Amino acid sequence: MKTNPGRFFEDYTLGEVIRHAVPRTVGLGERALYHALYPARGALYSSDEFAKGVGLKASPLDDLVAFHTVFGKTVPDISLNAVANLGYAEGRWLLPVWPGDTLRSESEVIGLKETSSGATGVVWVRTRGINQHGDVVLEYVRWVMVRKRRREVVVPVHVPELASVVDPGALVVPEGLDFSCYDFGLAGEGHRWGDYAVGEVIDHVDAVTVEEAEHMLATRLWQNTAKVHFDVTQREDGKRLIYGGHVISLARSLSFNGLANAQMIVALNAGAHANPCFAGDTVRAWSEVLDRAETTVPSVGALRLRLVATRGKAGELRGGDGKYLPEVLLDLDYWALVPR
Amino acid sequence: MKTNPGRFFEDYTLGEVIRHAVPRTVGLGERALYHALYPARGALYSSDEFAKGVGLKASPLDDLVAFHTVFGKTVPDISLNAVANLGYAEGRWLLPVWPGDTLRSESEVIGLKETSSGATGVVWVRTRGINQHGDVVLEYVRWVMVRKRRREVVVPVHVPELASVVDPGALVVPEGLDFSCYDFGLAGEGHRWGDYAVGEVIDHVDAVTVEEAEHMLATRLWQNTAKVHFDVTQREDGKRLIYGGHVISLARSLSFNGLANAQMIVALNAGAHANPCFAGDTVRAWSEVLDRAETTVPSVGALRLRLVATRGKAGELRGGDGKYLPEVLLDLDYWALVPR
Amino acid sequence: MKTNPGRFFEDYTLGEVIRHAVPRTVGLGERALYHALYPARGALYSSDEFAKGVGLKASPLDDLVAFHTVFGKTVPDISLNAVANLGYAEGRWLLPVWPGDTLRSESEVIGLKETSSGATGVVWVRTRGINQHGDVVLEYVRWVMVRKRRREVVVPVHVPELASVVDPGALVVPEGLDFSCYDFGLAGEGHRWGDYAVGEVIDHVDAVTVEEAEHMLATRLWQNTAKVHFDVTQREDGKRLIYGGHVISLARSLSFNGLANAQMIVALNAGAHANPCFAGDTVRAWSEVLDRAETTVPSVGALRLRLVATRGKAGELRGGDGKYLPEVLLDLDYWALVPR
Repeated sequence: MKTNPGRFFEDYTLGEVIRHAVPRTVGLGERALYHALYPARGALYSSDEFAKGVGLKASPLDDLVAFHTVFGKTVPDISLNAVANLGYAEGRWLLPVWPGDTLRSESEVIGLKETSSGATGVVWVRTRGINQHGDVVLEYVRWVMVRKRRREVVVPVHVPELASVVDPGALVVPEGLDFSCYDFGLAGEGHRWGDYAVGEVIDHVDAVTVEEAEHMLATRLWQNTAKVHFDVTQREDGKRLIYGGHVISLARSLSFNGLANAQMIVALNAGAHANPCFAGDTVRAWSEVLDRAETTVPSVGALRLRLVATRGKAGELRGGDGKYLPEVLLDLDYWALVPR
Repeated sequence: MKTNPGRFFEDYTLGEVIRHAVPRTVGLGERALYHALYPARGALYSSDEFAKGVGLKASPLDDLVAFHTVFGKTVPDISLNAVANLGYAEGRWLLPVWPGDTLRSESEVIGLKETSSGATGVVWVRTRGINQHGDVVLEYVRWVMVRKRRREVVVPVHVPELASVVDPGALVVPEGLDFSCYDFGLAGEGHRWGDYAVGEVIDHVDAVTVEEAEHMLATRLWQNTAKVHFDVTQREDGKRLIYGGHVISLARSLSFNGLANAQMIVALNAGAHANPCFAGDTVRAWSEVLDRAETTVPSVGALRLRLVATRGKAGELRGGDGKYLPEVLLDLDYWALVPR
Repeated sequence: MKTNPGRFFEDYTLGEVIRHAVPRTVGLGERALYHALYPARGALYSSDEFAKGVGLKASPLDDLVAFHTVFGKTVPDISLNAVANLGYAEGRWLLPVWPGDTLRSESEVIGLKETSSGATGVVWVRTRGINQHGDVVLEYVRWVMVRKRRREVVVPVHVPELASVVDPGALVVPEGLDFSCYDFGLAGEGHRWGDYAVGEVIDHVDAVTVEEAEHMLATRLWQNTAKVHFDVTQREDGKRLIYGGHVISLARSLSFNGLANAQMIVALNAGAHANPCFAGDTVRAWSEVLDRAETTVPSVGALRLRLVATRGKAGELRGGDGKYLPEVLLDLDYWALVPR
């Protein structure tokens, strides 16, 4: 057979490194599309002048453009036969991605565990995005539940130990970044790092009702080939499941209203796609400040933020049973850089 | 509260200058998207070679890309609590916007007048789009009806005097523009400035049935954050109101068929969004030649054009009561540069 | 009348060359949009680094971006009053199109034949895409059925002789292209030219359910002005007919899965838009290997491929009556370059 059937659970070997196909040069076209697809307004990713004003050579591509591009490449090898995308951990952005950079991805299998049903298994991979100079721009751990081809195959169990949160000391501040001369007026809000209190909840107010064409344009742009996003015959209900990363970008962009100065994502601590999102859903977002930390640069602070995408009210997350409420779409835990 | 509640009528002060947030670098990505979103075919904005042939260094970004970008930045400060966008006047394009330019916006409050209801007021602003060199690329007056927070507040009345039409002597022909060697064949039509008669009505024939995804992509691209364009829960009828500027660009692009040589918009005399536009509407356009003028460059003439977007027939505008017919969406009055 | 009514059958003269309007500079914005509109994953058109690795100076624009751009320009002069797009032949890609190139089109009328009804006629044109240096980048023959204005006009008959397939000796391998160091891992599949057998059928597995906004964005991007693609009032059934080229690009992109190494299209032998495609259709694709040939470069082979877009099963094409099955949308016959 000439086509890719995807890997099944027993096709993964602990420690193997999978080099994913189709490198991608990203640039100003992708930047413009990102602004058309999401209500992104972060000044650092909107304006070369603003980026230069905080010490960068130009405006890099949005952190999530890097994430989606790197993630998309892994789909044919990791999640084509996945039943569920279970979680993220230990994500770090290590270098900005500049217009013209070419990205490829590699994933190392770091964990394997059959599920109790015997029909599926969980695969943990550490994925790295690598630019044309061979430098790692991004890395993260992701685990997915994958179908087994044959129930009877036994795979040795190895569950990796993962940090529940990226240590603030490990956050990488991009070279040159300096918020000393940060223009709060042009950035859109006056709130500094010190103005955010741990436990504070911010309702981002704005909402977007999602269309099929939009999420498919986005998902294709990241060269994510998972069939359920494009083909109505893949699910019994005839719906196209929206790529979870589309919801991440939507929520992150909506969070501008209240977090305009949380400019750069530098770490992904955890993430759950709590419920599926479909076209017609009206997506809102709210954030909770989970922690604050200093960085190696005095003018740059870090906020640990919980970002929740929801079809419901701000601040609500789990029901009495401890499970995510049905209107919660995303629960993301990340570190962002904020002017002090 | 960390989020932007928008300004209410009593929050404006006559003479104050509001510096709007989020500068934006625009480029070839935005140009490509403009051509995907609108049936734009003007040769000067489609081809670097054609632009060089008429004396420019390259193809600038479409005049309306500049307008929408500058306008979008004003929304969080001017029209977040607006009830209606009432009019435009004294708009002038002063410099081309080149790929790579970074635009920001400023608005000066030039008029304030409470409406008879006491619940709202009209705010007039003169908005300027400014590039990375500090040069004004575009300016226009716009007035909107904005909610009052508290009825009892009294705001001194000042109604600005506005020109009903931009004086042709004030039109700025871009430096170097020369239509002496204009290639009418490549431009798509042979009609010169002298071929258009005042009073002539042109039915632009073509039509577009509008989709939700398209107007949202466009409106986001301009970083326009007005909730009614994106969120179906904002109106009782569950419809998303299409950004008026989307209709302007649609109509202007459709007007290629008959006005292919009306290459550059140089002034906006007046404009009314006569009726709301929604997805599913089939938008047509017609133009009326209102005036003709010479410019400072002998090969370059100016036509004053009424551009009407409609769901109905060409040539029809107002009913017996003097009000816009319900199928009229836009009535725009502008000056364009045309080869003589 | 200032607007373009399009040409009717009797408006064409054998041997005349029509120089089409609106040159277009294409670049990285168009490339990004191509990746958002189609599930395109060919490494050579995705990555500058990959393209350099096979001897090119950078990643050119997708062969079909060139085709659609050149084709779109011909619509106002050739197919505005067309009843049907009947066929293609003798298509050859002669030069890569690089970001920043400006394309225009010319068509030579090479055949004319009235149909038996007397109400229409068939027009054959040889269209050439020309870049800013005056070099032909692409040429193909296309024939369309066009309405007559007046039945009584008699036009001399001339039916051109067309090759049923482009001779492999006439295929142009882009200067510098060398697949000796081809990275099959990054390309996504390990199949070489020699791994494909004549008669082999490949089901490309993936599918896309098409949306209105997507095909309109694409068709506008190519500045194709045919009314039926945009305006629901043009057909009695209220449907917008999808541009046939949109289906070509969809099918070609889907064919990555099984033909990831069929990197460059170099010739179009034949093509039929077997049935109309509408939004809501779920489009699949399958290919049949029709022939294999060597080229002037030892590391580069050519495959002649039948590419079929369908709403149905792979491998099925015609019914017992010899007619295309109703679920077949496209039957395209082309040559592609593949590493040996």
